[in-house]
Amino acid sequence: MTPKKVSESRTTMTQMVMPNDTNPLGNLMGGNLLRWMDIAASICAGKHSASYVVTASVDHVSFKRPIHMGEVVTMVASITRAFTTSMEIYVEVFAADIKGGHTRRCNHAYYTFVALDDDRNKPVPVPQVLPLTADEDKHYAEAQTRRELRLMLSGRINAQQAEQIRKYLTEAVQDAGAGNA
Amino acid sequence: MTPKKVSESRTTMTQMVMPNDTNPLGNLMGGNLLRWMDIAASICAGKHSASYVVTASVDHVSFKRPIHMGEVVTMVASITRAFTTSMEIYVEVFAADIKGGHTRRCNHAYYTFVALDDDRNKPVPVPQVLPLTADEDKHYAEAQTRRELRLMLSGRINAQQAEQIRKYLTEAVQDAGAGNA
Amino acid sequence: MTPKKVSESRTTMTQMVMPNDTNPLGNLMGGNLLRWMDIAASICAGKHSASYVVTASVDHVSFKRPIHMGEVVTMVASITRAFTTSMEIYVEVFAADIKGGHTRRCNHAYYTFVALDDDRNKPVPVPQVLPLTADEDKHYAEAQTRRELRLMLSGRINAQQAEQIRKYLTEAVQDAGAGNA
Amino acid sequence: MTPKKVSESRTTMTQMVMPNDTNPLGNLMGGNLLRWMDIAASICAGKHSASYVVTASVDHVSFKRPIHMGEVVTMVASITRAFTTSMEIYVEVFAADIKGGHTRRCNHAYYTFVALDDDRNKPVPVPQVLPLTADEDKHYAEAQTRRELRLMLSGRINAQQAEQIRKYLTEAVQDAGAGNA
Amino acid sequence: MTPKKVSESRTTMTQMVMPNDTNPLGNLMGGNLLRWMDIAASICAGKHSASYVVTASVDHVSFKRPIHMGEVVTMVASITRAFTTSMEIYVEVFAADIKGGHTRRCNHAYYTFVALDDDRNKPVPVPQVLPLTADEDKHYAEAQTRRELRLMLSGRINAQQAEQIRKYLTEAVQDAGAGNA
Amino acid sequence: MTPKKVSESRTTMTQMVMPNDTNPLGNLMGGNLLRWMDIAASICAGKHSASYVVTASVDHVSFKRPIHMGEVVTMVASITRAFTTSMEIYVEVFAADIKGGHTRRCNHAYYTFVALDDDRNKPVPVPQVLPLTADEDKHYAEAQTRRELRLMLSGRINAQQAEQIRKYLTEAVQDAGAGNA
Repeated sequence: MTPKKVSESRTTMTQMVMPNDTNPLGNLMGGNLLRWMDIAASICAGKHSASYVVTASVDHVSFKRPIHMGEVVTMVASITRAFTTSMEIYVEVFAADIKGGHTRRCNHAYYTFVALDDDRNKPVPVPQVLPLTADEDKHYAEAQTRRELRLMLSGRINAQQAEQIRKYLTEAVQDAGAGNA
Repeated sequence: MTPKKVSESRTTMTQMVMPNDTNPLGNLMGGNLLRWMDIAASICAGKHSASYVVTASVDHVSFKRPIHMGEVVTMVASITRAFTTSMEIYVEVFAADIKGGHTRRCNHAYYTFVALDDDRNKPVPVPQVLPLTADEDKHYAEAQTRRELRLMLSGRINAQQAEQIRKYLTEAVQDAGAGNA
Repeated sequence: MTPKKVSESRTTMTQMVMPNDTNPLGNLMGGNLLRWMDIAASICAGKHSASYVVTASVDHVSFKRPIHMGEVVTMVASITRAFTTSMEIYVEVFAADIKGGHTRRCNHAYYTFVALDDDRNKPVPVPQVLPLTADEDKHYAEAQTRRELRLMLSGRINAQQAEQIRKYLTEAVQDAGAGNA
Repeated sequence: MTPKKVSESRTTMTQMVMPNDTNPLGNLMGGNLLRWMDIAASICAGKHSASYVVTASVDHVSFKRPIHMGEVVTMVASITRAFTTSMEIYVEVFAADIKGGHTRRCNHAYYTFVALDDDRNKPVPVPQVLPLTADEDKHYAEAQTRRELRLMLSGRINAQQAEQIRKYLTEAVQDAGAGNA
Repeated sequence: MTPKKVSESRTTMTQMVMPNDTNPLGNLMGGNLLRWMDIAASICAGKHSASYVVTASVDHVSFKRPIHMGEVVTMVASITRAFTTSMEIYVEVFAADIKGGHTRRCNHAYYTFVALDDDRNKPVPVPQVLPLTADEDKHYAEAQTRRELRLMLSGRINAQQAEQIRKYLTEAVQDAGAGNA
Repeated sequence: MTPKKVSESRTTMTQMVMPNDTNPLGNLMGGNLLRWMDIAASICAGKHSASYVVTASVDHVSFKRPIHMGEVVTMVASITRAFTTSMEIYVEVFAADIKGGHTRRCNHAYYTFVALDDDRNKPVPVPQVLPLTADEDKHYAEAQTRRELRLMLSGRINAQQAEQIRKYLTEAVQDAGAGNA
C-alpha cells in the first residue's frame, strides 16, 4: 500500500453549540464535545484507510476552558501514524463566539481507530502515514510512546514491558540531574 | 469599514448522515440538508460581519443526487457580496461515502443574512467583500441580478423594476438570434 | 388516472418551537423551519400521488418575521399542480403565541417532489390536480411560470427557452407603460 | 367569560415516524406517541384558555395497533369540557402509510391541563365549552364521570365519594338484569 | 416456567433534564416524562420475560409537582404481576436538584406490556411473579382490580362484567356506612 | 466537612440504544457512550459535593466490545476519591440484550470533576471520601497515581515530578527481576 500524506485525510468539522448541547450551566457538555470529536476523527480515519472504522480508544482529555451556548466549535482531525490495522488520530478543538471573535484553542485528544473489511468483521491493513512538516514528524515520532501507554492502561502489556515510557521518565530525571550539576 | 476577503470567513462544515437524518427511503432528507446549510452559512455571515445575523432568505435549491445514510456531507460556505446591511452566502454541498470514495458535488444554494446590532434589534452595516479570484469575481458580479430576482419573488419590487433580469433575458435572446443568423 | 382535488391531500402540521429549534437569538432557525415545511409538503405529495416521493427542489423562501421559542407553528401544505411525474406543493406557515394570540402569516414556499415506484428507483406518473376555488385556479395557472423559472435556475433550460418569464416581464412593462399613458 | 366552541381550539398535528422515534422492533414507541399527544393537547388547551397551561394528568391509554417507521401519524386534539381552572382534552390518533393508504384509528386519550396566570404560578379561570354536535354533547356529558374516576385514581376523593361511577356501574347491571328478564 | 422475584428485573434509570426536554415554562414536559417511563418499564418487562415486549397500555398518570431544567430524574420500574402473556409494571419517579437536594417523589404509573416471540409476531407466556415484601404483596393483590378497570376502559369488558370494581366500590360504601353507624 | 461514603452518591443510569445513537455499522458510537458516561458521572459528583460541577477530564477509555442497536446499557458511577475541590469518578459500563441476556462488562473510565460555588465561578471544597470495601480501598489508594499521570498528560507537572509513576514502573521491573532470579 502506498503511504499517504497527513493532508489527504485532514477533516474540519464545524458545529454551533445549540441549547440541547449544553449543561445546566449553559456551557457545552464535556461528553457532547467528545461525541463530536469522535465523529470528526472517524471521518478522518475512514478517508485515510478507505475502509470502515470503529473507535478503539480515546486518550486522556482535559477540559480547561468552557465553551458557551451559541459559540462556534471547530474540530480539526489529522492522522499522526498508522500501525498494522489501526490509526492514531489527533483532534484539536477551537472555539469562537458567533461573531468570529474570542477565538481560542480549547482541547485536544488522541483517538485510535481500527479499520474493518467490508463485512465489518475483521481488521484490515491500513496505508502508512508520510509525515512532511516538523509538526507531523513530532506527532509521528511520539505516537509509539502514546501507544505503549495506551496498551499499558488497557492492560494489554504490563509495567515491565513499558520500556519507552520508563526510558522517557528516567531520561527526564537524568537530564534534570545533569542540568542541576 | 475595511473590505474583507472571501477567504477570511469561508466555513467548512462536515456532518455524517445519522439514521434520524434520513427519510423512509434511507436518504438524507432535503429539509435536513437545508438546515445544515443554514448553520454553515450563518457561521460564515457571522464571521464576515463580526455581528449577530439572521437568515433573510434562501434561493431556489435543487436536490439532484440522493445522499445515503452513513455518508459524509461537507458544506463549504463563502460570502459572495455584501449589500448595506445584508450578505449573500454561497453554500456548496459535497458528499462521499464513509471510506472517502464516490466524492460528488450534490447541491448549492444562495442564502442571505441580515447583520444585527448587539441588542439583536436593528440592522447594522457590514464590510464590503473583496473578490480576488476569477470565481469570486463572477459570483460578485452576478449577485446584483440574483438580488433583483429575490426582491421580485418576495414582492418587494414589481416586474417593471426588474431591469437586470429583463435585460439578461432579452440579451440572451438577441445573442441567440445573432448566433443563429 | 382520475384527477384529484386539492383538498384530498391538504396536510396540516403543527409544531411547538422547542429550545433546540432556536438560534442563539432565541428564535426559530430558518433551516429548521425549512425542514418542517419539507416534511409537511412530502406528506401532502405522498397522499396525492399514493406513492413514495423525494424532494426535487424548493423555491426561494424569505424569512420576514421571527418566530419565538414556545410559539406554535402551523404549516398548511396543498398541491397546486401535477406535471408528468412531479408535483408542486405550496406550503404556508402561520405562527401564534402559546395562548393562541398574535396569529400571523410568516412564510410560504413552493416545494417540488418526484413520485417513485415501489422499488424507489424510477419516477412514476401522478394524477392531475383539479382546481376548484379561485385561489386554486390562480396557483394552478401560475405553476407553469414557476416551473420555467425553476428549470432555468437549475440550468436545465437556458434564458432563450424561458418564454413565459420573458413574456411576463415584457407585458408587465407594457402594462405599466399603458397605465402611465 | 364567554363560552367557546370546540372547533375554535381544535388542533391537528401531523408527524412522520422517523428512525429515532421507533423501538428496536421498528415501530413507534408508545412513550413517544404520548409525548406528541401531550404537545397537540397542550396547544389546544392554550388556545381555548388563552393562557399558559401545564399537563395535570393523562388517563388510561391503550396501544392496540403498531405504527411503523415512515408512516404518517395525525393527532386531532379537541376540548371536551372546562372545569373552573382546568380543561379536559380528547386526543385521537390516526395513522396511514406514506402513500396515504392503510388509514386507521390507532389510539385516543383524555389529557387534563391547568391554566396558569402570566407569572405561571397560580391557576386562572377558563371559559366554558359550548358543545354543538351530538358527539361534542356526549363527550361533555361524560366528562364528569371521567373526572370523578381521575380524582379517585389520584387519591383526591375516596371510593365512597365516587357516586357517578358507582351509579354508572349499578345501573349497567340493572339494565342487563332487565334485559335478561 | 419458574416464577421470578420482583428484584430480578427491577430497573433504575436516571436522566438529567436537558433544555430540549422542557416546555416554554422551563419545566420537564409531561409527555417527555411518559416517554422515559415507557423506556424504563419496557427494559424491566424485557428482563422479567426474557423476550421482546411492546407497550400495551399506560394507566392514569397525574403530574403534581413540576420538575425543572437541570434537575435529575430517577425512574424505578418494578414488575407487580404477570398474566398469561402480559405484565404490569409499576414505575415510580423521583426528582432532585443537581446537587442532590430537594429529593421528592413526583409521579407513578402502571404500564402493561405484552411479551412477543422472536419473530415479534405472537404473544408468548411469561413467568409468574413471586412477591416477597408486604409492598410487593399489596401491588400483586391489587393488580387484578387495575386489570379489570383497564379492560373496561379499553372497551374489552362491559360495566356488568366489572365485578371487582363494583365490589370494591360497594364495600367501600358499606364500610363507610358501618363506620358511620 | 463530614466525609461521605461511596454508596451515598453511587448513580445508576440505564439507556436503550436507539437508532440515532448508532454508527453506520449499527453499533453504539463510542462518542455517544462517552456522553452518557459524562452525564452519569456528573450526577454522581453533584450528589457527593452537593454543588454544581463541571467535567475537568476523562482518562483513557478503550472500546473493546461493540454494543448493538436495541441493547440496554447500564452505567454505574461511583466516586473513588476527593481532592481539595475536585473528585475522581469511576464509571463502569454494562450491556445486555433487550431480553436481559448476553450481559457483559464493556467499558470503564475515570472522569474528574471540579465543584463550583452557586455563582458557578469559583471552585469550592468537597467532602472527603470514606472507602469501606476492599474494592473501594483499592480505588482510593490508586487514585493518587492516576492523578499524577493526569497532571503529567495535561502538562501541569513534568516528567521529573512524576514520582509515583516512575516508582511504580521501576518497582514493577525489580519485582519481575526478583521473580526471574
